[in-house]
This record gives sequence, structure tokens and C-alpha cells, in this order.
Amino acid sequence: MNTPYSGPVRPSPGAVSTLRPVAVARIEGGFWAERRRVNAEVSLAEGPARLEEAGNLANFRAAASPHAEGGTAPPGFAGDFQFQDSDVYKWLEAACWQLADTPDADLAAEVEAVVELIASAQREDGYLQTYYQLGAGEPWTEPAWGHELYCAGHLMQAAVAHHRATGGERLLGVARRLADHIDSVFGPGKQVDAVCGHPEVETALVELHRTTGEKRYLDLARYFLDRRGHGSLSPGADRGHDRDPGPEYWQDHTPIREADEVTGHAVRQLYLLAGAADLAAETGDTRLRAALARLWRDMVTTKTYLTGGVGSRHDWESFGDAHELPADRAYAETCAAIASVHFSWRMALLTGEARYSDLIERTLFNGFLAGAGLDGRTWLYVNPLHRHARSHERPGDQSAHRTPWFRCACCPPNVMRLLASLPHYVAATDADGLWLHQYATGVYGDAGFTVRVATEYPWDGTVTVTVEDAPAGPRTLALRVPAWCADHTLTVNGGSAEGRTESGWLRVTREFVPGDTVRLVLATPPRLTGAHPRVDAVRGCVAVERGPLVYCFEQTDQPGGLDPDGVALVPGAPLTVRSRPELLGGVSTVSVLGCPLPEGASADWPYLPYGAGAQEAAERVELTAVPYFAWANRDVGAMRVWLPLAGHE
Amino acid sequence: MNTPYSGPVRPSPGAVSTLRPVAVARIEGGFWAERRRVNAEVSLAEGPARLEEAGNLANFRAAASPHAEGGTAPPGFAGDFQFQDSDVYKWLEAACWQLADTPDADLAAEVEAVVELIASAQREDGYLQTYYQLGAGEPWTEPAWGHELYCAGHLMQAAVAHHRATGGERLLGVARRLADHIDSVFGPGKQVDAVCGHPEVETALVELHRTTGEKRYLDLARYFLDRRGHGSLSPGADRGHDRDPGPEYWQDHTPIREADEVTGHAVRQLYLLAGAADLAAETGDTRLRAALARLWRDMVTTKTYLTGGVGSRHDWESFGDAHELPADRAYAETCAAIASVHFSWRMALLTGEARYSDLIERTLFNGFLAGAGLDGRTWLYVNPLHRHARSHERPGDQSAHRTPWFRCACCPPNVMRLLASLPHYVAATDADGLWLHQYATGVYGDAGFTVRVATEYPWDGTVTVTVEDAPAGPRTLALRVPAWCADHTLTVNGGSAEGRTESGWLRVTREFVPGDTVRLVLATPPRLTGAHPRVDAVRGCVAVERGPLVYCFEQTDQPGGLDPDGVALVPGAPLTVRSRPELLGGVSTVSVLGCPLPEGASADWPYLPYGAGAQEAAERVELTAVPYFAWANRDVGAMRVWLPLAGHE
Repeated sequence: MNTPYSGPVRPSPGAVSTLRPVAVARIEGGFWAERRRVNAEVSLAEGPARLEEAGNLANFRAAASPHAEGGTAPPGFAGDFQFQDSDVYKWLEAACWQLADTPDADLAAEVEAVVELIASAQREDGYLQTYYQLGAGEPWTEPAWGHELYCAGHLMQAAVAHHRATGGERLLGVARRLADHIDSVFGPGKQVDAVCGHPEVETALVELHRTTGEKRYLDLARYFLDRRGHGSLSPGADRGHDRDPGPEYWQDHTPIREADEVTGHAVRQLYLLAGAADLAAETGDTRLRAALARLWRDMVTTKTYLTGGVGSRHDWESFGDAHELPADRAYAETCAAIASVHFSWRMALLTGEARYSDLIERTLFNGFLAGAGLDGRTWLYVNPLHRHARSHERPGDQSAHRTPWFRCACCPPNVMRLLASLPHYVAATDADGLWLHQYATGVYGDAGFTVRVATEYPWDGTVTVTVEDAPAGPRTLALRVPAWCADHTLTVNGGSAEGRTESGWLRVTREFVPGDTVRLVLATPPRLTGAHPRVDAVRGCVAVERGPLVYCFEQTDQPGGLDPDGVALVPGAPLTVRSRPELLGGVSTVSVLGCPLPEGASADWPYLPYGAGAQEAAERVELTAVPYFAWANRDVGAMRVWLPLAGHE
Repeated sequence: MNTPYSGPVRPSPGAVSTLRPVAVARIEGGFWAERRRVNAEVSLAEGPARLEEAGNLANFRAAASPHAEGGTAPPGFAGDFQFQDSDVYKWLEAACWQLADTPDADLAAEVEAVVELIASAQREDGYLQTYYQLGAGEPWTEPAWGHELYCAGHLMQAAVAHHRATGGERLLGVARRLADHIDSVFGPGKQVDAVCGHPEVETALVELHRTTGEKRYLDLARYFLDRRGHGSLSPGADRGHDRDPGPEYWQDHTPIREADEVTGHAVRQLYLLAGAADLAAETGDTRLRAALARLWRDMVTTKTYLTGGVGSRHDWESFGDAHELPADRAYAETCAAIASVHFSWRMALLTGEARYSDLIERTLFNGFLAGAGLDGRTWLYVNPLHRHARSHERPGDQSAHRTPWFRCACCPPNVMRLLASLPHYVAATDADGLWLHQYATGVYGDAGFTVRVATEYPWDGTVTVTVEDAPAGPRTLALRVPAWCADHTLTVNGGSAEGRTESGWLRVTREFVPGDTVRLVLATPPRLTGAHPRVDAVRGCVAVERGPLVYCFEQTDQPGGLDPDGVALVPGAPLTVRSRPELLGGVSTVSVLGCPLPEGASADWPYLPYGAGAQEAAERVELTAVPYFAWANRDVGAMRVWLPLAGHE
């Protein structure tokens, strides 16, 4: 049962947005339906148990007790981080999007119980963060590390989801009281004139404004955006934090409208940009919009992995320098991929440009999805493009081993909320018609123009769109032709058609009637991809791609368990696609000829006179690649996305 | 005025050591003499002022006051780290080695004043660490992070240096009381049965044993070595430390005799190995010696930069995986280069093998020396092989900008002690004769066999050795032929000679008489060097080397300030050496033809179909490289050691 629009990111009627989300958005089969089924039946269903084990829910119960505020140290606060509450809020938001899509009485009851628990923990004055309520210190005194506005933002997003999905007012009331409290505390001349070390509240306040109509929330979002970049944060001001990550870490180094590159902590940067895009849509701020386009472009041209992942450094989970894209030490946090999708989708709506959804597609199928185990209950926090057979990793979050939950558990519920809300990233609308940004079997539409999509994407590039309902008069159906696609054909009602292709959009304009069928066939031959010569990390290497999928060579798939660090790819050899329904939940593999990488001329020192390099080996082996999103679901072993080209070592 | 042996690392008479250090070891001219002059006149002379500014000396004064031990928090403890005392000890050790070499009344007076200050701060029971004495907590309760044994080790090394240099007993007495106290506290069944999170006390206790003859100190060193690797450290046990770097960080993951690769925090790993090598020499432990050879080999074949630097990750200052050697994100801490020299020199003495001194030479001239600014008062903590023009670096220690002192100031006094003791790394002796490990103008010898070395090394490969004093009967003069040297000639008293070359040693055996002259000419043409095909980071690139020097391309030296990230090197073009006495204190540069790196085919996405790469540019520019050790002494700009080869991008 859909309310008018029951997804995230809903521009106000007066917003400056080229496109609008669609009210009808249902994924009903194919690739993503299966991943969303696992998300609902396993990940979301088991979420409360994980949150109970980790103590997050107990924190709310403790904060709700009348004796909570006595101590000076957190008595019984469970978890290592100030932001433990946000894990609960993100699960709740995900559950609400899922309920909006598919009614589920058990899940609905769990949601309402958690809503009541949260409400019971809120202070009289509206304040809510169990870490400080349980005695960790004085609220609003540690803006750099406290994560209070960050948690508040996730509460607001959960409340918006709860309201849009169920019409419920209970959590929205909690969020409004907290937002009003924040409004009374923060601002020029008020108790605190500073921002939060972790952006998030900005996008949440805009969405709260959109749902409630309260302009103060929009003004507060603008205040936080404008205040940032003026050095209001000093790590030394917070107790117990002597490490200084520098102002870029929390996006306090430069005002956003003046910034010309993405930098600092990747998730912080991208949450901020998502909020800024929301604000630009609501306010029509053209200088802000120009900065956003500039920053997105900087990210995608110099700081994005082939998988769509971002964040090149483990060190402070940050972006690196331009073209600093190491495959093995890629951080590419799952949350950063999600944040990139959030930012890009807002830009897609704002501008109508296909490039943003190109990146969303790449990120969804690769850098994002790798974060979620095929079983729905194991996760990756970091998503490298290369893993050595004998790998030295820090324990826990930063290891490239699937893990049931993390000490810092930001990623799992973040995956849940993106999968649960995924139908809303597929299509958008404007006065002319319907824009299909992604290809997933289902029903999409708005304002009387509704289509049914059928596709085996990403395994096959054929997309069949059947009109279910159409208004009178000409309309445009716009289909995104992905940048990776070198060849496509279009038919309308079985006859070949031209359409207009412009900037990635293939537009079919006509007076549609129910039953009209538009078929787009995107050629998806496997292909070899190289990198820009400035990307030092993968010079002389190629990667295998097919359609939107990036492939990788896992050790377990190679003959004799051959370590992929010891092979090169033979250029010119054919790439062979095989359908393997029994493998990894059903995938297509790509095979190619390789040869052993020559060993260095010297066994004593890994550097040798130029020209003394070893000969290309005559031996040939068949190497097999699987989709990157499915890696690390079997044996732990070596993995490479990029392979050296034989003869170019 | 030399005492019998006034340098570091003095194996006991009964030690199992192939070679012994020499009593006469004086650098009197040339390259290193100039660097040692700056070290003495600037770095060492200004050291006490730096230690005063940073509060290190004030900590000792505060600890010496009768009211020191009242509080519960460090009242007035200056500095952010538990190990602030060690900066004082390292300066003191350096100053003592300098005094052993060159008497200096002012420096001697400063040394004695600091010795008295340290002595006055020691507790009655022998305990000494100002951090805990000033109230930070209970001594010996935080083995993982407390650095108490680490500081004690540096005190012992300073005391040994003080005694060997001056014959003084005062600081040795302090060190013995502290060692006796440690011996009473640590051990099976005693108050603490654990190791220190930062190895260092092991090598120090062996040297204290060598100087005092006290066997308990050797036993204690062995206890600490054997106890490590059995999980005695748990970060959670220490107050206020919730970050878990994993057991490899403090070398507590595996017993050292079972280890098969270097890993974890690079300085911790190498200090431990240095201490283990000392122990192996004193005890004849063959299993330990085999492990040390294996670990050294693992380091040099898979985890060492071309500069000799080690430590591939900023993340916890650690070694990376095998062949993980990124140029831009190289950590290559100055202290790790120093620790590598310490370890390698002990192995050189233990085994007599030239390979260890090959690595020492490379490290000294490149990865180590880059850490010291030409002015003697600015430093690098990290030593990358690539710096982007627009570089995002954390503030402080981890930036590649020369800095007058660091918040964590381990490196500067460490540089001082290695430069001050450098003459003792040049030569060694055995019953057959004299082994010249390094080439530096000066006088070296022992037991009546003394030679004078004259050389313009590293700018010129000619080394002239003149016998000053020789005993009756045949003796061997062994000259190391560096692994980088493809061609050398030998003359004895002006006539061509053969010598025996074996495993890097060129041996001349004869009955030497004073005035005999042995001349070795090492060919030092500039050369291009490639890397092992498994080193992903620099595939398709070459580096310029000449003699023992690694070169680098700094932006400021290129025509029009060309960013070296935008150029490729034209293979086959000649390399031109130019002597530039006015540049960077006098260096030879190497010039080579380059061409602009092609831009990627797409301006929108840095990955492109294989084969769609851009054409090699026809334009040619002359690129100029300077020795790596001299980089970052002028403008801050881009720098590359490795350049892509044109036509191989």
C-alpha cells in the first residue's frame, strides 16, 4: 500500500529539481528482487537480535529509566562509540522502507516496539542520545567527536521513513521535539555556534522540513551547512581525544561553495554533499549547485575506483590525492559507496543528467553490493580490489573477511536501508514523461504514466518496457544508455526505432497506449578495461568487465588454486562467458588465458637493472573471473580485479 | 681520545661473532664528515633547547621534586606521549658518541648536567619514568602502551655510551639500579610476567651486560625475548586505550624463532630483531640466528623500498604485505631506517656477509639521510618516494614537509645518534684482517692493522686505501663490492691486481707494510632500475640510480616547474651527470629525456577500454633528478622517484 511517495528524497513542490521521484516503484523480480528478499528475510529480520547482542537497545532502556542521569561515567553504556544509537535508527529506517514496500505484521510490530523504546528514552527537553544521557558527559560540549547531531539526523531520517511508510506520527513527534531542541541550542549567539564532526543532520533536516513543512528545519540545515568550513571544530576541545586528524577529516577546512575537490573522511564528505544537494534543490542556490557538480566531477574523474568505491586510505577512512587509487589498500568503505549513491541520486534529480545514474549503477552492482554477504548476515566494511594470499590486516572492521557484525556497525544497517529503499532509485519523472535510471524487473511510474519492466539484467542486456497506463497526449519514455555500453538497439512494438540519444538518454516520444512495448538491447560482451596513465597503482594492468559488472579473479577459481598475484593476462585472447547457475547464487563467469608472471631476475633484491627483466612465460592457463560483488563468500584467499598484461610487466 | 672501543654494539669476548668492531674508527673528510659536522654543530648543539621547549627536561625536574608523587593525573607532565623521556636519552646517547669522537667542553658540560638531572629524578627503588612518576598511574600496570621498558632501554643505551665515551660511572649506576629494579619486578612468578609493547630494552640489556659483565641482564633480555609472542599484551588492559592494533603491532603474535616474515609496526619489529641479534651473538643460539637471517631476507626481498626505507603503511606505522610498496603512501619512517641499520649491522658482525652492509649503505645514503634536513634543524618523519603536487596529508608527523620538531619526536634524536656513531659502521675486523663495509674518508683499524681511506664517495667510485700500520705476517684487506656495482677495477701499489671476489667481498691478502696502497674503482655510471613484477605500485616505471644513490625528480628542477606526475621517461635516451657544487650543498644531478604523459581518452571517467589508450607524445623535455636524500629542502612541490616509461603507460 503506497502512500503518495513512500521513499527517501522527496523534493518539496516548490523545489528546483529537474526530475521528481515516482510514486509507483516496485521491484518484482530479477537480480535485485532476490537480494531484497534476503535483505528482508534475513538481514532486517535478524537486525533486532544483533542490536540486542551489541547492547544498542539496552542503552535506550537504560536511558529511559528514571535513574539514568546520575553518574559521571557511562554506567552500563554498551558499545565503544558515541554513535551506537544510530545503528538502531538505521535499522528502523530500513524496516520502514521495507514495510512501505511489503506489509509484514511481525516487522511492523517490531518497528512499533522500537519506536516506543526510543520515545521513552527522550528527555523532557527533547534531547536524545543515550551515550551522554548515560553519564558520559555534558551534552553539546564535544562537537568534534560527540556525534550528537549525527545520531539526531539518523533519528530524523527514520522518523521520516516511518511517517512516509505508515503515516505514523509517534516517531515524527520525537524527531520534531529533538529538532526543536537543537534549534534552541545551535546558532549564532546561542549556546553552541558550531557544527557536528560528522555531517548527516543536514540532509535529515531537509527531509524533516519536506515532511513537516516546518521552515525552521530548512533554515537550521542551511546554518549547519554555512557554518562548516570556518574552523568551529577543534579536536582538543573534546575530552580524551588527543589525535588530530586535521580539519579536512570533518569537512571543516573550507566553506563548501568554495571547495574544489572531495577530501577528508569519505562518508563525512559525501553525507555533507547529499545534504547540500537537498538544500540546493529546496533553495535554488545556484552557487551551491555549481560547487556540487564540481565536487562530484572531481570525485568521479580522479578518486573513484572501478567498482564505484571511494576512499583510498585506511588512514582516517579518507579520500586520497587525485589518482591515488591503490587496489590492495583501497578502503572503499561500504558506507561510502552508499553515501555516494545518496549524493548522486540527489544530483540526478536536481539536474536530470544520466552521468549520475551511471555512477549509481556501477556502485550498486559492485562497490556497494560487495559489502553484503550472499547470506544476508555477513558483511564487509572495507572493499579492496586486491587481496594478497597472505594478508596482514588489522582485526575487525578493516579486514577483508566477511564478519557477522562490527564493533563499529555503521555498514550493515546502512546496506539494509539502501536495499529496502532501492525501488525508489530506479525511475524519475518530469512533465514530459518517465526516466528509467536503472533496469530492474518491476513497475514504475507516476501521474498516470506507468510501465512494467522485464529484464535479466545484469546477466543479459535486454530490457523490455511495457506500458501499463498512459495519459492522453505525447509523452517521453527515456532510457539510460550506460556509458559502458558501446552498442545498443531499440525496437518499439517490435519494429526497429531510432529514438533520440543525447547525453546518455535514449528518448522515445509518442502517444503511448497500454500494451505498447519498448525494447532496448544493450550489448554486453565481456571487455578489458585499462586505467588513466596517472593511476600509478594499476599501470600496465587490465580489468574484466561485462555490462555493469566488474569482475575479479579469486584464488579459489583458478586451476590448482593458483595465486592470482602470480599471473598475467594474455592480451588478445578471447574472453569466454559461462552461465553458472550453481555458483554463488547464480552468476556468469568470464574466462581468459593467462600466463605465469615472471619472477624477478634476482632472488635477493626486488629491483633490477632496466632491461634485465624476465621473459614472458610460454605456459598458458585458463583464468576464471567472478563478479566482484560475490567475492569473499567462499574460501579466504587472494583476489585481484586488475591483472598485469603479459609482456608489459 | 678513544677508549678501547667507544661505539655501539660491542660483542663480549666470548660472543659468537664472525667480525668485531674496530677500536680506531674516525671519519675525517668527505660526504659523511660534512653531515656529521652539521649534526654536531647544529642538531646536537640545539638539542637541549628543543628538549627544553618540548618540556622533556622539565618532566625530569618535576619528577625530581619531593612533591612529585602525590597526584592521580600527570600534574604538569609535558608532552602527549608516555615515552617523552626517551627523546632525552637518545640525545644524550648521541652526544656521548660525539664526545667519544671529538672532545668538546661545552657539550661535555651539557651532558653531565643532563646526567645529573636524570639521576636526581630516579626513585629510591630504582624506578624511573617521569610520566608515571608525575601521577599518570601505577607503574608497571600498562605494559601494552606504557613504554616503561622502552624508555628504560634508551636510558641503558645512553649509559653505555656515556661509559664507553667518558669512562663515567654515574649514568651507568642509574641504569644498573633501574635494570636491577626491572629484574626484581619482571619474570615468571614475579609481579609482572609480560613484555613491553615497544621492544628496545632487549638490545639495551645485552649492551648493559657487555659493559658491566652482569649476567642477570643478559638473562633478563632473553626472558623478554622468549616471553614475546605468547599473547602477554592486551590493549584493553591499559586505561584509556580502546583501539586494538592487533598482536602483530607489538610483535606479540608469534615467538620470534618461529616467525617467517617481518610484520607489524616497523620500528618495533626491527628494534626487536636488533636485540635478538645481540642475544644470538652472546649466546650462540643457532635457531635464533636462523630466524634472524630468514626475517632479514623476507624484509629485503619483499618489503623494502628502493631507498632502503621500510614500513609500507601509515596505518599503525607498519610493514605491509609482501610486495606492497606504494611510492606515494610509503611510510618509511626515519626511525625504521635507523632500526634497519641497527639490525643489519648486528647481522653483518654476526655473519660477516656483505649483503647486510649493502643494505646499510643503501639505507644510509637514501631512506635514512632524507630524514635529516640539510640545515640540521628540520626533519622528515615519513619518507615517501612520491609526493603529489596537491597532497593531502595529516598535519604534523605524517606530512612530507620538513618540520623543526615533532609532537612525537622520536626521529630527530635518533638521526643524531646514528650520525654521531656512524664511524663505527664503516669497518670490522677478524683474526685475518680488516673488512671495509662502507667507504668514507678516514682512519680505521684494530690490533695494529690500520688503514687510511680517501674517497669522494658517493660522487665518485674511487676508493684509495693506504696502510698506516700493519703487523708482521699476511693479512687480508677485504673491500665490499656493492651489489649495485657492475664493474670494478683493483690496483695494489699502482699495479693491477686481481684479488678474490666472493659473495660481495674483494679480498687482498698479503704481508702489508705501511704505505701500501690499495685502490678500488667502482664504476658509477647512472643507471635505470626497474622493479620485480609483483611490485604493483611501480609496474611500468623506472628509477634513476647512480652508485649508492637513488635519485628523484622534484618539481622545482623541471623545465617550467613541470609536475613530474605528468611526464614519462623516454627509454634509451642517455643519462647525463652534472656536478652542481652550488646546489643543495653540492650534488651531482642526472638528466634524462622525458615526454608528457598522455591524458586519458575520457575526461569523464579514469578507466577506458583496453587499447583505447592515448598516443605517446612527440614532445621531448629534459628532466633533472637530484639525490633523494636532498629532496624537500627547497620548494614544496611534487616529487617522484619512479617515472613511467614512455610507450608503456
